[in-house]
Amino acid sequence: MIKDYLEHQFSFKQDDVELFAKCTGDDNPIHLDEEFASKSIFKKRILHGFLSASIFSKIFGTISPGEGTLYLSQTMFFLKPMFTETTYMAKVQLLTWDNAKGRGTYSTLISDPLDTLVFKGEATVFHENFKAYGEL
Amino acid sequence: MIKDYLEHQFSFKQDDVELFAKCTGDDNPIHLDEEFASKSIFKKRILHGFLSASIFSKIFGTISPGEGTLYLSQTMFFLKPMFTETTYMAKVQLLTWDNAKGRGTYSTLISDPLDTLVFKGEATVFHENFKAYGEL
Repeated sequence: MIKDYLEHQFSFKQDDVELFAKCTGDDNPIHLDEEFASKSIFKKRILHGFLSASIFSKIFGTISPGEGTLYLSQTMFFLKPMFTETTYMAKVQLLTWDNAKGRGTYSTLISDPLDTLVFKGEATVFHENFKAYGEL
Repeated sequence: MIKDYLEHQFSFKQDDVELFAKCTGDDNPIHLDEEFASKSIFKKRILHGFLSASIFSKIFGTISPGEGTLYLSQTMFFLKPMFTETTYMAKVQLLTWDNAKGRGTYSTLISDPLDTLVFKGEATVFHENFKAYGEL
């Protein structure tokens, strides 16, 4: 089912970061090595940007529109670093849709526990259900 | 070391897709379930878009500019579905850079074995080495 708007709380563990590094091959020590990261501008390990933003892949693919969703595009602006063991809020707002093509375009935002925006972007996805979605 | 241009061959296995689903929580069956995927428009399981595009996270974070690279933004246009056990070519071209801010913006492309473009986008990353990179 397609929702116009949803909020989804999430957090990642260092184990998730390790798995992400393994399947993508991105073992940049800024995500994995405490000693290396302690000398960086953020002073500790940060999440891979692609891991944190993948929350939208999860939302679209498993919640709304749900299984079978195909990603067409996503813009990603990483405004602030994100960390493990921190509860973030993803916000997804349907902006426009195209019944004929079965596509929807969403605003995709992530806020930290202080409600500071840490990520912004837009996503366009395909799902058969958009073909029967309410007319604009 | 910062390279103006590089090409990087890669492929993913279904095991990588499983790990990606596990760490991101995106278990959309179009990536995991052969039976479900056989009824989709592509007739078989496809890679998560975020997994395929993460090749650029690997390239920037481990090859050029290399370790310590921070992602600032990435646009992703998924032009064609991508599959496991297929050798793709990622192409990264430095477009502009800013010595003062230590940032570089790249064209990021992926081609399939027939040299058809399957992904396009642009990335902006931070690395200390951009501060000493050649003047425009």
